[in-house]
Amino acid sequence: MTSYDEVISATPGDRAGVYHGFIPEDWGLGHALHGGVLMSLACATMSKALKETGAHADPLVLSSFFLSAADPGPFELRTEIVRTGRRMSTAQVSVVQKEGPNRGQERVRAVATFGDLAAARPLHRTSPPPAMPDPDECLAPHRPLPDKPAQWPFLQHLDLRIDPATAAWQEGRPSGQGEMRAWIRRASGLPVDAFALPFLLDAMPPVAFDLGINGWAPTLEMTTHIRALPEPGWLRMRIRGENLTEGFLEEDAQIWDSTGRLVAQSRQLAGVRLS
Amino acid sequence: MTSYDEVISATPGDRAGVYHGFIPEDWGLGHALHGGVLMSLACATMSKALKETGAHADPLVLSSFFLSAADPGPFELRTEIVRTGRRMSTAQVSVVQKEGPNRGQERVRAVATFGDLAAARPLHRTSPPPAMPDPDECLAPHRPLPDKPAQWPFLQHLDLRIDPATAAWQEGRPSGQGEMRAWIRRASGLPVDAFALPFLLDAMPPVAFDLGINGWAPTLEMTTHIRALPEPGWLRMRIRGENLTEGFLEEDAQIWDSTGRLVAQSRQLAGVRLS
Repeated sequence: MTSYDEVISATPGDRAGVYHGFIPEDWGLGHALHGGVLMSLACATMSKALKETGAHADPLVLSSFFLSAADPGPFELRTEIVRTGRRMSTAQVSVVQKEGPNRGQERVRAVATFGDLAAARPLHRTSPPPAMPDPDECLAPHRPLPDKPAQWPFLQHLDLRIDPATAAWQEGRPSGQGEMRAWIRRASGLPVDAFALPFLLDAMPPVAFDLGINGWAPTLEMTTHIRALPEPGWLRMRIRGENLTEGFLEEDAQIWDSTGRLVAQSRQLAGVRLS
Repeated sequence: MTSYDEVISATPGDRAGVYHGFIPEDWGLGHALHGGVLMSLACATMSKALKETGAHADPLVLSSFFLSAADPGPFELRTEIVRTGRRMSTAQVSVVQKEGPNRGQERVRAVATFGDLAAARPLHRTSPPPAMPDPDECLAPHRPLPDKPAQWPFLQHLDLRIDPATAAWQEGRPSGQGEMRAWIRRASGLPVDAFALPFLLDAMPPVAFDLGINGWAPTLEMTTHIRALPEPGWLRMRIRGENLTEGFLEEDAQIWDSTGRLVAQSRQLAGVRLS
């Protein structure tokens, strides 16, 4: 099994701004790679490119467009420095599949603005974290893909415990509320850095499952705000989806650290199939 | 005064994928242009570029990064078709200032995925619109920039009526709730198209004002989901901000049409100065 630190560490290529990354099968979801780890790799690589210019390189806001499903294997990351400033800088990256039948295809296009998270540290107001039973009273996801055998290798990298009050969909009884709550941390127990937050925000089963929509829900785009580095300990998260049309559902996710502070939040637009 | 339809209509330039736009002072905010109209122009121009390829060209999700404040005048819009598909396509645009001391500077970098809004029409679940007094009992923004004379020429293009229950900040008494509600429509009474929705979502005074933060709140990034074309009539909107740190505040905005359906929502990360 590869480590998180390995998979987000792209190495510089021959051409300026081009990096090489590798994400193996243990970060998979079904037959493809999990989109979250692609966001972490994309974000860490833009940060690396910015750092080389001497700019602040902590991610503040990241937008990722998912263009096509990615296969495990090597990737080329083509970065562009869009703007550097004294306090904030913006970069862009194209994550391109390097091998396989769709070699050369762009999988993710991401843009992000970076700054100095330490400078944004003092907290004035935070969304309150959800109340939940202790992690030991919560449930590992045991029926993640209702229509198929569980194929979530990426979950090996996480310790995820779903609040039983929001897990009835696992027993075939979706609540219809469109909400799930959970405890989450890295399986390794190592600290969660800023690049891991987009991955964690995208790590729960789709909130569509709680609305009784059991097909897959591919993400068109996901925007993440990173507000602070989490303090050590369990993180709490909540995902919600409210506006469902023929084909689309938004999923909002929030993560709080052990001090009760919101450290990151995201919204994605997902495509859903209504049968 | 220019019309909305004029300012979002860029014309093709000499090079493939390059368009020319012009936004005059009546779309200004303070000494710069309003960011919302730049998003509308960016989105309409990407749509135009996609339409030329025969792809679906209704915006579904738009992410706009604001790189620097834009001056009124001509712009060059450099589009890129990122991916075309049978059901959805993705494009990107750089909005570049054509004249003035910072000529050639990129003001906005936007990426968007387009599809067919008509195909996503059937509604299964919507966030409920806020209850508000009738438009005639609501207030035009009369003290938009607390520390300066009103300099909001772009508001001429809109009919905006703020719920008095969320307008005490106009009298120097911010509620501290971080919420504003309003009725909104085009001043011309003409229908609101999909490209106008990002502009409308960004048209209210910053929610920071209701938290007692009176300085300006520049947007780093704003993501908009467009869920449906609004039915004719008044639109209702609500903006909220909850997570405030030393320097940053998110602003969530939602718009409902006259049938009570959520037609668009956005989240932006804004930079705030705490005195």
